[in-house]
Amino acid sequence: MDIQQKTINTIRALSVDMIQKANSGHPGAPMGMAAMAYAVWADAMCHNPKDPQWRNRDRFVLSNGHASALLYSLLHLFGYNMTMDDLKQFRQWGSKTPGHPEVHIEGVETTTGPLGQGIANAVGFAIAETMLAAKFNKPEFPVVDHRVFAFCGDGCMMEGVAAEAAALAGTLKLGKLTVLYDDNDISIEGNTDIAMREDVGARFAAYGWQVLKVDDGNDPQKILAAIAEARRDERPSLIICKTIIGFGCPAKQGTASCHGSPLGDDNVLAMKKTLGLPEDKFFVDEDVYAHLADCAARNAQREAEWNDLMARYAEAYPELKKEYDDWYGMKLPEDFMKDEELWAYEGRIATRATSGTMINRLAKRLPNLVGGSADLAPSNNTYIKDGGDYSAENRSGRNMHFGVREHAMAAICNGIALHGGLRVFCGTFFVFSDYMKHSIRMSAIMKLPVTYVLTHDSIGVGEDGATHEPIEHLAGLRAIPDLNVIRPADGKETTAAWLTALTSGLPTCLVLTRQGLPQYDHCGCKAFKGGYVLSDCEGTPDVLLMASGSEVEQCMQAKDVLAKEGIAARVISMPCMEIFNRQDAEYKEQVMPASVRARVAVEAGATMPWYRYVGLDGEVIGIDHFGASAPAAILFKEYGFTAENVVATAKRVLGK
Amino acid sequence: MDIQQKTINTIRALSVDMIQKANSGHPGAPMGMAAMAYAVWADAMCHNPKDPQWRNRDRFVLSNGHASALLYSLLHLFGYNMTMDDLKQFRQWGSKTPGHPEVHIEGVETTTGPLGQGIANAVGFAIAETMLAAKFNKPEFPVVDHRVFAFCGDGCMMEGVAAEAAALAGTLKLGKLTVLYDDNDISIEGNTDIAMREDVGARFAAYGWQVLKVDDGNDPQKILAAIAEARRDERPSLIICKTIIGFGCPAKQGTASCHGSPLGDDNVLAMKKTLGLPEDKFFVDEDVYAHLADCAARNAQREAEWNDLMARYAEAYPELKKEYDDWYGMKLPEDFMKDEELWAYEGRIATRATSGTMINRLAKRLPNLVGGSADLAPSNNTYIKDGGDYSAENRSGRNMHFGVREHAMAAICNGIALHGGLRVFCGTFFVFSDYMKHSIRMSAIMKLPVTYVLTHDSIGVGEDGATHEPIEHLAGLRAIPDLNVIRPADGKETTAAWLTALTSGLPTCLVLTRQGLPQYDHCGCKAFKGGYVLSDCEGTPDVLLMASGSEVEQCMQAKDVLAKEGIAARVISMPCMEIFNRQDAEYKEQVMPASVRARVAVEAGATMPWYRYVGLDGEVIGIDHFGASAPAAILFKEYGFTAENVVATAKRVLGK
Repeated sequence: MDIQQKTINTIRALSVDMIQKANSGHPGAPMGMAAMAYAVWADAMCHNPKDPQWRNRDRFVLSNGHASALLYSLLHLFGYNMTMDDLKQFRQWGSKTPGHPEVHIEGVETTTGPLGQGIANAVGFAIAETMLAAKFNKPEFPVVDHRVFAFCGDGCMMEGVAAEAAALAGTLKLGKLTVLYDDNDISIEGNTDIAMREDVGARFAAYGWQVLKVDDGNDPQKILAAIAEARRDERPSLIICKTIIGFGCPAKQGTASCHGSPLGDDNVLAMKKTLGLPEDKFFVDEDVYAHLADCAARNAQREAEWNDLMARYAEAYPELKKEYDDWYGMKLPEDFMKDEELWAYEGRIATRATSGTMINRLAKRLPNLVGGSADLAPSNNTYIKDGGDYSAENRSGRNMHFGVREHAMAAICNGIALHGGLRVFCGTFFVFSDYMKHSIRMSAIMKLPVTYVLTHDSIGVGEDGATHEPIEHLAGLRAIPDLNVIRPADGKETTAAWLTALTSGLPTCLVLTRQGLPQYDHCGCKAFKGGYVLSDCEGTPDVLLMASGSEVEQCMQAKDVLAKEGIAARVISMPCMEIFNRQDAEYKEQVMPASVRARVAVEAGATMPWYRYVGLDGEVIGIDHFGASAPAAILFKEYGFTAENVVATAKRVLGK
Repeated sequence: MDIQQKTINTIRALSVDMIQKANSGHPGAPMGMAAMAYAVWADAMCHNPKDPQWRNRDRFVLSNGHASALLYSLLHLFGYNMTMDDLKQFRQWGSKTPGHPEVHIEGVETTTGPLGQGIANAVGFAIAETMLAAKFNKPEFPVVDHRVFAFCGDGCMMEGVAAEAAALAGTLKLGKLTVLYDDNDISIEGNTDIAMREDVGARFAAYGWQVLKVDDGNDPQKILAAIAEARRDERPSLIICKTIIGFGCPAKQGTASCHGSPLGDDNVLAMKKTLGLPEDKFFVDEDVYAHLADCAARNAQREAEWNDLMARYAEAYPELKKEYDDWYGMKLPEDFMKDEELWAYEGRIATRATSGTMINRLAKRLPNLVGGSADLAPSNNTYIKDGGDYSAENRSGRNMHFGVREHAMAAICNGIALHGGLRVFCGTFFVFSDYMKHSIRMSAIMKLPVTYVLTHDSIGVGEDGATHEPIEHLAGLRAIPDLNVIRPADGKETTAAWLTALTSGLPTCLVLTRQGLPQYDHCGCKAFKGGYVLSDCEGTPDVLLMASGSEVEQCMQAKDVLAKEGIAARVISMPCMEIFNRQDAEYKEQVMPASVRARVAVEAGATMPWYRYVGLDGEVIGIDHFGASAPAAILFKEYGFTAENVVATAKRVLGK
């Protein structure tokens, strides 16, 4: 057995041992993809285990994340910060080898597991590379020049999010993207033939990809030959590798039974025998380590050469080098947070419009801000004026056209955010946040500062009717951990929302109106607290009126009416519940005194999120049914979003 | 101008007049697709305006639902229950011409607007037809024999849900499905070239579709010739019709500006002049009505012939005819709800397993129950034993293999439910309900009795880690109107949940554990109330302990511990909040006395939904962060889902 084959088999054995020890996991894919992994990691890919954050490294995405044992085995063998003890703790509490790969682990580029997401992340990596290359490269200085390799299986190929991303990748001619498809004909319910008879290669060719086929996915030389072809083409490449799931295990290979369950001790031993390996658990021969150390040394040399290139670049183009550092360092301009121009709005304006104004104000100050919409830029107000249109022909464009592909859009933005160097936002109608719900969740799991611009945020959509009127979406997104959902009530709150999005280190959903809203008399800074007293009464309030976004207006009107009747009302604006909930108890008590139990919340969405604040004695004016098609003003009136109804409800909770 | 052309132009003018009067809507698509619509509605499609529910009618799906004015114009002109006054009320409060088509309107087969959904609905219609044909047809009696025509635009073509559905349609060789693609090169942000350069025809050919091209989408004869080709092929067919958005309006046609805004009065007049129509608003010449009345008469004759066929079928196959009526009538067996065998379970069992048992018990009693999973049948326990596998070769199979295509799966099930004759369920992991969130919403908007089997419902997933552990999903789904989200605590509650799903007339999400749960001593019937007292104390309780699903167990244990310390606790099981909320005030007061303010809710998910019940003085033991990868028992302990923590929390809310 030559050292290459021995290394490949060691990858298989390590992966299987991890799963067997955990008594949990997915052995089939690591066994089937071991040679693909070896070819990419040992030869094709430029990466330095000793500097996993090297900016010009090639990126690797394991889109079929259930093959995590493969990735951890690679990280260990290639010398990343992943010990044998870590492998032995696979899938255990507190380990750095969780069931699916997580980006906080050194050497893992993105969190994967939910199928299809990784392919779209990889497209995002590839887009980011072209944008940064267009900005920073000079003919003799290709300082941004790296590739993306993604592995995926049949599951990823079936997911719509991957199809959307692949269609866009073809349109955009992302030539440095190479996807290796583990084509093993097996899915959980059996042969893929039961659900998937398409010609995947022909489909990708239709998208504009180069399609290459490797008839033996166990032969690293054939895989490398295909990768060499991929390098020579300006299109993205799909390499279809014919593989055998669970390769090496006589009783299991080629069957669905080895997909998601440990092989069993006997089968592990049989596999090791078949592959010519000793029976020992977690065994790695010294020559395997030595072989891969050679590879690591070669890569360390590559980084050293790039460091040298960068040093010369810094001398030749000091301004660009400074910008490069600023972009990657996500530097904000000085006094940015106090920049008064960012806070000025006049008249009645929709928050989608104030957001559009902010995007353009920010774009002037933050040259690495890029974004786009799922074919709704004119409605979402997401267009950067004079920013140019990003395309296969213009990598300098700052406006991306994602097409009507919400899901891929979000997952691609996750990839762009992961890549580093750019700030990214994307937009669609709020109701279609549904289509990208899982990618928003992935933004949150990875704590990626992607900004979602979600306009047309309520029945204010009006005539488009039930299918276009979000109801449950605020509740659904607010329930996602590590995500800020901000629904501003006016321009200043929109500014605070955008500044929060840029500085919080978390993803942000900006939930914005279609219809015009008034500007309130406040500094805007209090909105950074998530919830605050927008308009107070004298002394202790009789009743608290609280709302977000467009319904703040009805509360403000109701307060005045109530005052005339001798009822003291406080209006609390609550643009972001998540941030308010993180404030200290003292602040929260100041805003919502525990002793004031008469509370009314108003929001043109599902009532669920507000019971936390109104309790058993208050009421929520919300909408727990689908909306109708009619002019917006009529819908607000019919559904009770009026000052009169707020007044009546306040009196009811006060027992008056 | 011949009568065909006159009719086509009248369709254009009516649509544009509606939009202009409403001052809101999408004129471009109706103008571009008018000839396609005429060809299908006046000739290719078998439909009877006087009996819109005729069971053997062809189905029409307007997947690009923003072209609703086109559909309403057709309904009016062809003699459906849609008056000129209805057209004049387009997009107004209380009208039956809402902004996007809604299925409750006579002649509208499915609610559309969110792009891509309609294509998948159409695939569902086509699947249902094959299943029912396989069951009921006899060589001389093709009693189930109809086609599906779907219109779509570039937006639908870009959506992943449509790609998934098309891939499955090709695999399943759904030959009676014909999709007409309004290929007009324009999307909202401009020419489709900016985001979509794929070869759509080649892509569909790769899926296994017949692909036909019509170079002039304004020529009904060419369209009909292509439809004739489609009829001759056993594959589904895509007819790519080259069209011009906004055709007929000189200043606007071929541009994005006519997509989503009224043309303006001047442009409407210019259009009518160009098309050779009078300037009058809402003008329909008598010969147009007469022409289409001929068409309606032809179709009425077709239904009469089918009625005759059915009468002879009833004589030849009385048993089958009875079954046909039972299936379409959704008849339940006698004494079904009291069938004791449905309620029996023993030992510690996961609710995914009790659900699997129920599916098989139900499948024996309900021969029209069909379902499947997104490649997780063995994990979701969704397989009907001895039910056979549905495929291109076996239309009698009751188990559908959707592949890893959650979004299309749900939208296809909506189509199956809409078709009539079948009861349908589908499954995936709960966390991946995200991928199909919008189709679940569409189930709810349409009140379709689709049952979603969502297993692995919490951190009980364990080793698979954060990406596979649902957190916010209960909150998100519960906030959807007209959807029952049921999380049963044991086998009997699972039975009640399934029976609710079958009889409520609403979609149902069954949220089910991976891990084993105990069986409680109760009748199960109280679960029909959504929430109920599972275990009570003597007298008025000191504290209410409430939970759903797996966390009921910790509450039951805590109650006993508290009792020993002299604290009287009541355990409330809450499998379905939506149903509980619909109970009368008296019942709710019985279960949760307003006077008892010491309340603890326990659920391994986001805390948000429970504040409605615990108020400001109670506490929720939930999980508002992402989970880790570790054996499930460790996660439950680490995150506080233990009897000890319930006891401690109860004491805290009691101030003890």
